[in-house]
Amino acid sequence: MDLSEAVACCSPLVAEPLSAEHSVELARVFKAMGDPVRLRLLSLIASHAGGEACVCDLTDVFDLTGATISHHLKVLREAGLISGERRGTWVYYRVRPDLLARLSAVLVPGSAIRDAAVAR
Amino acid sequence: MDLSEAVACCSPLVAEPLSAEHSVELARVFKAMGDPVRLRLLSLIASHAGGEACVCDLTDVFDLTGATISHHLKVLREAGLISGERRGTWVYYRVRPDLLARLSAVLVPGSAIRDAAVAR
Repeated sequence: MDLSEAVACCSPLVAEPLSAEHSVELARVFKAMGDPVRLRLLSLIASHAGGEACVCDLTDVFDLTGATISHHLKVLREAGLISGERRGTWVYYRVRPDLLARLSAVLVPGSAIRDAAVAR
Repeated sequence: MDLSEAVACCSPLVAEPLSAEHSVELARVFKAMGDPVRLRLLSLIASHAGGEACVCDLTDVFDLTGATISHHLKVLREAGLISGERRGTWVYYRVRPDLLARLSAVLVPGSAIRDAAVAR
């Protein structure tokens, strides 16, 4: 199952019990976010001018080797939280706002409730 | 720093780079959610009638020992995601919707943007 599909699938946690299958996919995404360096990378990329950042924008912020930064970027990418595009020398990363919005919606039923109210 | 404070503190990830200090606190919460069993427990508690569940409601769902379930509940509790109250024989667990709402808001700037627009 594609990860964005898994996240799209799921009702808010409070609406109904999460299935075993979906919990595995969702847990992968949260686990990727369960590290301070990865959360900061995600935030640096998301808040960077133009909504994208290359490794060259990210490495100076941390007292970590390039290899370590690359490892964390790979975990974020494999979790579907960021996408990368090579242009010339650098890979440019962007967050996937659709996935973040879906994750956000899984945590609170607010938007679902609002949507239902509007539809009535 | 109290955990709900840490989560309350933080602007949406896309609004500005997350500080090193806040990233540690936030990562702890996401790490607690980075496990399929814990996500299902969270969802089972959140969606249970009355918004609370005791261990007796949770153990039958999983093919796991009571000790394992208790361990996962402890991790969720230490992350501030659930609270527990002993009444008679059982501890009753509730999710903390305030914390989930704040986590959700960290992931998308939607509500912050809407609030700012309203305030203008």
